[in-house]
Amino acid sequence: MTVETENGDLIGQQGERKSLNTPALVLDKAAMERNIARMAAFAADKGLALRPHAKTHKSIDIARLQLNAGARGICCAKLGEAEALAAAGTVPSILITSPVVSAPAIARLASLHEEIEEVMVVVDHPENVRALAAAFAADKPLDVLIDIDPGIHRTGVASPDAAVALAREIAAHPSLCLRGVQFYCGLHQHIQSYAERRAAIVERTGYLRGIVDQLTETGFAPDIISGGGTGTHEIDAELGLFTELQVGSYVFMDNEYGECELFGDAENFEAALFVDARIVSCNTPGMATVDAGFKALSTDGGKPVVTAGAPDGSAFIFMGDEHGGLVAADHAFEHGAAVTLQVPHCDPTVNLHDAYHVVDGDTLIDIWPVTARGRSR
Amino acid sequence: MTVETENGDLIGQQGERKSLNTPALVLDKAAMERNIARMAAFAADKGLALRPHAKTHKSIDIARLQLNAGARGICCAKLGEAEALAAAGTVPSILITSPVVSAPAIARLASLHEEIEEVMVVVDHPENVRALAAAFAADKPLDVLIDIDPGIHRTGVASPDAAVALAREIAAHPSLCLRGVQFYCGLHQHIQSYAERRAAIVERTGYLRGIVDQLTETGFAPDIISGGGTGTHEIDAELGLFTELQVGSYVFMDNEYGECELFGDAENFEAALFVDARIVSCNTPGMATVDAGFKALSTDGGKPVVTAGAPDGSAFIFMGDEHGGLVAADHAFEHGAAVTLQVPHCDPTVNLHDAYHVVDGDTLIDIWPVTARGRSR
Repeated sequence: MTVETENGDLIGQQGERKSLNTPALVLDKAAMERNIARMAAFAADKGLALRPHAKTHKSIDIARLQLNAGARGICCAKLGEAEALAAAGTVPSILITSPVVSAPAIARLASLHEEIEEVMVVVDHPENVRALAAAFAADKPLDVLIDIDPGIHRTGVASPDAAVALAREIAAHPSLCLRGVQFYCGLHQHIQSYAERRAAIVERTGYLRGIVDQLTETGFAPDIISGGGTGTHEIDAELGLFTELQVGSYVFMDNEYGECELFGDAENFEAALFVDARIVSCNTPGMATVDAGFKALSTDGGKPVVTAGAPDGSAFIFMGDEHGGLVAADHAFEHGAAVTLQVPHCDPTVNLHDAYHVVDGDTLIDIWPVTARGRSR
Repeated sequence: MTVETENGDLIGQQGERKSLNTPALVLDKAAMERNIARMAAFAADKGLALRPHAKTHKSIDIARLQLNAGARGICCAKLGEAEALAAAGTVPSILITSPVVSAPAIARLASLHEEIEEVMVVVDHPENVRALAAAFAADKPLDVLIDIDPGIHRTGVASPDAAVALAREIAAHPSLCLRGVQFYCGLHQHIQSYAERRAAIVERTGYLRGIVDQLTETGFAPDIISGGGTGTHEIDAELGLFTELQVGSYVFMDNEYGECELFGDAENFEAALFVDARIVSCNTPGMATVDAGFKALSTDGGKPVVTAGAPDGSAFIFMGDEHGGLVAADHAFEHGAAVTLQVPHCDPTVNLHDAYHVVDGDTLIDIWPVTARGRSR
């Protein structure tokens, strides 16, 4: 059966990928499912809980696949992301990985806490702890994790003493329940060499171990130690301190992670996320213009890689808000041809699009909304 | 009267801007209205038609203000943008400034052509001309402009001869009506020095004048010569070749244009667009972290400038998808404080947000949807 969407995209047997309206965010479902199964098997093998980060995909459909594969819950970067995903489907547990600070946001968190089974939030400041404590009640306390700064200075308490002081502050409020700690080494995820990344993570894990020991000695032994990412999960598991992994990008991979040696000895995850674009102009020899620019591809992670529809090695150049250029000397580009681009950085690229165009090979088989698109608030 | 939105933002007398859920796209309505009035007066004074580019704002509310101030129509970058704006309100004339190429897109264009008073599209390739001709009928022909490449090699015919050849191809199809030409010097808009920008535009206008003369001699005299931008409108008007201006960014201004001397002797347009963010962490002396990163601010135009809520000259640094850093040595940042950021590049930043938070001074007075957000297809 074939279904025609409002804009003429065909879903089903006659849904040719190359005929899609462009630029289109395209998801290779089989590749993504293999990535999900592989990470689930890894975590199960290591005896670790899996809490994939939904900031990567913002999709209830993909969250559901991760949960069905055994994830204990999901992470959300922002409260708005958690609200959107919780409204779209059943999620057993959500950890919000950034502090929730303002008065209206804390009121919204209290509503979400009424609506879903488990919501946890990180804290890194005593004022925030007191503001949260005032908005919750002892008969249904809010679960919190102490966020620990691994040295990036983005969020988190800045020292072991500050961690213990914050634990004492939390313990003073019966409306809060201290469940553990979060430690996310964001910058370390993309160290390209496996050996260098491993050395950095061993050192940082030593720092975290000291804090965990100090919390334990003062009566605040953490049940949950949450962290890790796609770039470090294998090392994190080996070091044995984390109880759960917050991996995100492994579902899709992207050029940034594609350039990393993620494993000591195994193949990388598979690229599953693309933007299909179309050649809309080609009047200059060796060049063509496609209909994807800053509004279809995030620019923070470098340039997309051309994987189909143009010669291998065609260089992509950004040409403004709406367009990109392909450069391949001596190649005659085909006016109107579809071109596939592997995305440079998956998270902010997904956030530009309203829907995933789910493909099986060259056939469009489904359209999934980007459930929490733009929910950064 | 004060109205409370679903997420607790208050609109009206008690709607304090500093209490907004963040990150929020904020529009200073009075400043924007002054920009709109100034450009309208300029075009009227020079006897030029104004066709503001809606790719900047993607908003039917702002388009309406521009039309009420005398604009003859709007430009849209993409068909999807035109569809969304036409569905949201009455627009007398829309010019789509990029070629519409694929079969499903041409079918959508034919529907839009039935629905609104006037829609025009640019063409730069004979195959595209034939495909369009086949989808329209002689009793209600499609208006087209020949897009001329000013040397950027993004879109447009590449030579005077190609322009004449394309005019002949268009004239061979009674279902198409050639109305004129488009010539948009994208890269020239941001040449910072007024004198250098002027010299470049004088040279390029000479090239365009040669093409217009050649079209006129061969019987294809253009009624419409559309182009120009915020960076060159004063020079374009002085040179006297364009019949209408496609200015976009003047409504908001942004850091990129703010750094240009837009005029020989007058003040620049006013900054009217901001992202308000909140300090969600400040545990490291001289630093703070706000809740706006790659998903709230586009990164292609440099870094935002801090204009309120932190010391003047605080440097903004991007800290990933969800966060930014403020750096100001010796300053004690206030946990939870609201911070105002002037956006580096308005168009792709607007495209990240679902709504404008319209303010009068420090009061939220309205919320306007970003009508065509994400409509890049």
